[in-house]
Amino acid sequence: MNNIDTMSVNAIRVLSADAIQKAKSGHPGLPLGCASVAYELWAKHLKHNPKDPDWKDRDRFILSGGHGSMLLYSLLHLFGYGDLKKEDLMQFRQWGSLTPGHPEYRHTVGVEATTGPLGAGMGMAVGMAIAERHMASVFNKEGYPVVDHYTYALGGDGCMMEGISSEAFSLAGTLKLSKLIIFYDSNRISIEGSTDIAFTENVQKRMEAFGFQTITVEDGNNLEEIGKAIEAAKADTERPSFITVKTQIGFGCPAKQGKASAHGEPLGDDNIKAMKENLGWPSEEPFFVPEEVYAHYKEIVEGLQPAEDAWNKMFAEYCEKYPEMKELWDTYYDEDLAEKVCDDADFWAYDDKADATRNLSGKMINRIKDRMPNVIGGAADLSPSTKTYMKDEGDFSAENYAGRNMHFGVRELAMTAIGNGIMLHGGLRAFVSTFFVFSDYTKPMARLSSIMGVPLTFVFTHDSIGVGEDGPTHEPIEQLAMWRAMPNFHMFRPADATETAAAWYSAVTSKRTPTALALTRQNLPQIEGTSREALKGGYIVQDSKKAVPDAIIIASGSELSLAVEAKKVLAEDGIDVRVVSMPCMDIFEEQSEEYKAKVLPKNVRKRVAVEALSGFGWDRYVGLDGDMIGMNRFGASAPYSKLFPYFGFTVENVVARVKAL
Amino acid sequence: MNNIDTMSVNAIRVLSADAIQKAKSGHPGLPLGCASVAYELWAKHLKHNPKDPDWKDRDRFILSGGHGSMLLYSLLHLFGYGDLKKEDLMQFRQWGSLTPGHPEYRHTVGVEATTGPLGAGMGMAVGMAIAERHMASVFNKEGYPVVDHYTYALGGDGCMMEGISSEAFSLAGTLKLSKLIIFYDSNRISIEGSTDIAFTENVQKRMEAFGFQTITVEDGNNLEEIGKAIEAAKADTERPSFITVKTQIGFGCPAKQGKASAHGEPLGDDNIKAMKENLGWPSEEPFFVPEEVYAHYKEIVEGLQPAEDAWNKMFAEYCEKYPEMKELWDTYYDEDLAEKVCDDADFWAYDDKADATRNLSGKMINRIKDRMPNVIGGAADLSPSTKTYMKDEGDFSAENYAGRNMHFGVRELAMTAIGNGIMLHGGLRAFVSTFFVFSDYTKPMARLSSIMGVPLTFVFTHDSIGVGEDGPTHEPIEQLAMWRAMPNFHMFRPADATETAAAWYSAVTSKRTPTALALTRQNLPQIEGTSREALKGGYIVQDSKKAVPDAIIIASGSELSLAVEAKKVLAEDGIDVRVVSMPCMDIFEEQSEEYKAKVLPKNVRKRVAVEALSGFGWDRYVGLDGDMIGMNRFGASAPYSKLFPYFGFTVENVVARVKAL
Repeated sequence: MNNIDTMSVNAIRVLSADAIQKAKSGHPGLPLGCASVAYELWAKHLKHNPKDPDWKDRDRFILSGGHGSMLLYSLLHLFGYGDLKKEDLMQFRQWGSLTPGHPEYRHTVGVEATTGPLGAGMGMAVGMAIAERHMASVFNKEGYPVVDHYTYALGGDGCMMEGISSEAFSLAGTLKLSKLIIFYDSNRISIEGSTDIAFTENVQKRMEAFGFQTITVEDGNNLEEIGKAIEAAKADTERPSFITVKTQIGFGCPAKQGKASAHGEPLGDDNIKAMKENLGWPSEEPFFVPEEVYAHYKEIVEGLQPAEDAWNKMFAEYCEKYPEMKELWDTYYDEDLAEKVCDDADFWAYDDKADATRNLSGKMINRIKDRMPNVIGGAADLSPSTKTYMKDEGDFSAENYAGRNMHFGVRELAMTAIGNGIMLHGGLRAFVSTFFVFSDYTKPMARLSSIMGVPLTFVFTHDSIGVGEDGPTHEPIEQLAMWRAMPNFHMFRPADATETAAAWYSAVTSKRTPTALALTRQNLPQIEGTSREALKGGYIVQDSKKAVPDAIIIASGSELSLAVEAKKVLAEDGIDVRVVSMPCMDIFEEQSEEYKAKVLPKNVRKRVAVEALSGFGWDRYVGLDGDMIGMNRFGASAPYSKLFPYFGFTVENVVARVKAL
Repeated sequence: MNNIDTMSVNAIRVLSADAIQKAKSGHPGLPLGCASVAYELWAKHLKHNPKDPDWKDRDRFILSGGHGSMLLYSLLHLFGYGDLKKEDLMQFRQWGSLTPGHPEYRHTVGVEATTGPLGAGMGMAVGMAIAERHMASVFNKEGYPVVDHYTYALGGDGCMMEGISSEAFSLAGTLKLSKLIIFYDSNRISIEGSTDIAFTENVQKRMEAFGFQTITVEDGNNLEEIGKAIEAAKADTERPSFITVKTQIGFGCPAKQGKASAHGEPLGDDNIKAMKENLGWPSEEPFFVPEEVYAHYKEIVEGLQPAEDAWNKMFAEYCEKYPEMKELWDTYYDEDLAEKVCDDADFWAYDDKADATRNLSGKMINRIKDRMPNVIGGAADLSPSTKTYMKDEGDFSAENYAGRNMHFGVRELAMTAIGNGIMLHGGLRAFVSTFFVFSDYTKPMARLSSIMGVPLTFVFTHDSIGVGEDGPTHEPIEQLAMWRAMPNFHMFRPADATETAAAWYSAVTSKRTPTALALTRQNLPQIEGTSREALKGGYIVQDSKKAVPDAIIIASGSELSLAVEAKKVLAEDGIDVRVVSMPCMDIFEEQSEEYKAKVLPKNVRKRVAVEALSGFGWDRYVGLDGDMIGMNRFGASAPYSKLFPYFGFTVENVVARVKAL
């Protein structure tokens, strides 16, 4: 390890420690422990170009242990990404800075994914590696490997303890994603102390069981050893690789290294002084980096340019030789594709007969897959039930990366992270699917979709007590409220074919917001009055004859037909009601106050909402004077034709509750 | 395998197939495939007594693949548990029957846990095995192993794909839970087809990596081989055991066995006929079981009695010899313990100074642990931050099963399942802990706590944007709404020491409802007017002078102090407001209409709620005429002293919003 390499590694340590100290908040343990690994990878192996962070064939690097964000920010600064200045590092964790506590996608140039919840980056990395293989199989031609890059992720013991990493890695092994390379920062320290208290498993053996090549770097500061490990990982073209790097948490800081206290608090001024001395750093001044170190990084960056130049040249030739592929490429990367191809009459067409919205959704998926070749997706081992299979598009597998039907296995959480990763890669739109009640499992990663602004689509079927015989463990109750409460998430519950088409249209045209569809298992009638107005989230489906209705019934999904039938019965008694469909509260809330007041006039207080799930949140529309027919308990196991009447989801009850007001 | 054994195994298959056929709904694949394993275990190895299903030292059996419920119901019927009749099997999946679609705890005698969400049973089994070791270490005396039993769980590929099983088994291996024995029903079939499409990992190698003994039964219908495997599992006193049983899904049904279609739909009348022929079953009549088979099961059950008789004798001697242990035993099993010991002045005492509710909660935990020796718990590697460590109580580990501090590792989902399992075992009360934002990870298993009526306690700290620098991935927004929407769950957000004590009192005295505490990272002042009235969920903390207040401000947790300060400022302007604290909406909703109307009179419509999380759900109290100061977006990374004012959580803003009404 020559001196300039040592200095360059230590610059990462110094900047990280100083930034965390200045912020009086942060996690120095990982940046100090992993500085060598990160430097060796970024300086000598990673295919990237700080001058063009969006280069489509760049290698991806995800810091799964997002709390070690200063490692990433130090790298981005030293490599000159997005002109991230020393001043930005000085603003670490401060209001409005480019250096928030955990790395944030779309916020800081060079950050490939928002991380923080442990294990998330591992799942997203698997998704990125899947996207790479799929895109490669679609686009590469003999002599033109236009998609050909690695995905690297770095995480620690916490990432390996979280179940999501087992889920994701088991699938990665099955799929033989040999261009996926994982660094395991093994420092044997967790927040509560030695990992021995909770984590004595043989991690490498587990990874071998998943089908990974495993490699160990005994000295996490030996650049040569690290470099050889990376080369060995690349050399295996059959298996993904897992590189265990034995590190010391907080390396370089004598009082802290190897201790749990190095993990999540500033080192302290004295300890930083001692660290700089220990590392032979030339100055005590905070954030000082010698000019020769900056010059060295600059030289590295200059050396990275030719690879992209060569790729650009190859890509230009490819485009000329295969103009149809160039066109397809542009189609894949066209953010406005859905608007262009999903708005014809066939897209919105339907048969006027009773059908389950899960079936109708299945039809929409098959219309969309023909219009949008870049759509890929699947279910957590439930596609025959969630109706998410794309006909004639093949199965994505180690033998057929061109397949568009993903088989995620019974792994809802990893599935969602993988969906995020596929979309983060670029070029593809993904959907994932499971039963609505199991959307609970997807929550931590769906939250990341929302935070990152990744418009992943969730197909959640079996959306109420309509599940019937499977009983309470399979009947969603509180799930609609859970999703409606989350920012930047569109939770749709369509009532029939037209609204299902609208939900899908909204999903595939969304640029920055994930969309979920809650769909029925049971058949529903087509409703008179449903329309593309559903894209406003809530709208009048059948209005009163009077300008001011006697009452308003609001419903979604399977209960909209009850509302419509109740209106008829009430009309016979001279009560003139308006029926409002509310397929997506989130989008309705985004409408103008005028529109909302038009649909739900302030002066009409006799309002009844009906939805066969928790009423929590409906008070926003029924207020203190209205009424709500919902579920305030868990469901039960019986045919749904028994459950709906028992729990009050009947025309008679809707009529009675309106009259009671 | 002699004839009566064969007949007895096939009786399970026939009853399962017939019940599912009659219900026109259900999952025959597992019951047919696993009938031999279940029979061998229950008939010849399991320590149990159908005549006393509550025998405290019985072995536990959890059907983790809960969709195979007919396997369990057939066993319970044949062994005579709770007098489960043939007629009950005929009512499989029907309204109000004892045989719902998935096994339900507290509903059917002999069901040890509600299962259905895959992997859940594995996590709960680990919890039960932990409870067994802890209770054994507390109670057993030389020659008196009063707690000494095995925990068995049976699950399939789905259970093994779910991340929760990796989390739970990694911990089980670390803890050397040698009395835990897992059956892996390896049939190589999943819903979407062969497991090869998503699950080619070496499962046994993974389990070895976790520290399990692994055993394979090549022929899942060879009772002798199964029996030997169970004996070998018991013989290992250092490691938990994992028995892979190679089975055929839907075994016995010629048209279905080995096929995905055997999994989740009735076999069909013709196929059942063919199955009965194939198995040499003496009658085609549905639900027919020969008398000799019933007689055989009766004989088995009679043979189970002496073991419990012997235990009862030993236990009586133990109680006589160690009267103090008998007293302690009764304390552990006293459901009313908390009411008796947690209501003294010291329990409610506090220092009148600003403090974070996480710290105050930590004090309460340490008061409770001295009063309730049966409390055990810990965090997902965050106890220094969540303040959940019980002083001087030691760490639960393979070397010290008497320790009361659990180290769950970074495994929130398994932690929750384990918490459920500990409580299902009986004798212990458990708490689990993580950051509030990561409560997302616990959701699927917390839902089971609520469905089962298991009063697990959740300590969720860092409960708002008050988290500050860690940023949006660590700042809960929608989590309060998510938990409030779930039935049978008490979500507390206390405002100060008194309310924190109330939240804990509510948690430990709860018999059938889990409780969560959302607690601050930052210091809060003690509020004048808080009291044990907090146990009503919502109450008047500072009232208006007028009988009818000009307005009502409602708040919880860290925002209650804003409400109280705003009241003072408004008073200066002659506006006389009432301040209502709402630490637990769920419990407030359980109060009488009179009480609720007293706190929030219908005629006072000028209401402002303030809570630094999503406003979703607050309309229940502010209605269409009120206002809500909440978070309708994700948070940001900055010191909380910057975030609170930016997002409007200031006295000035509360005052302004009240005035605006």
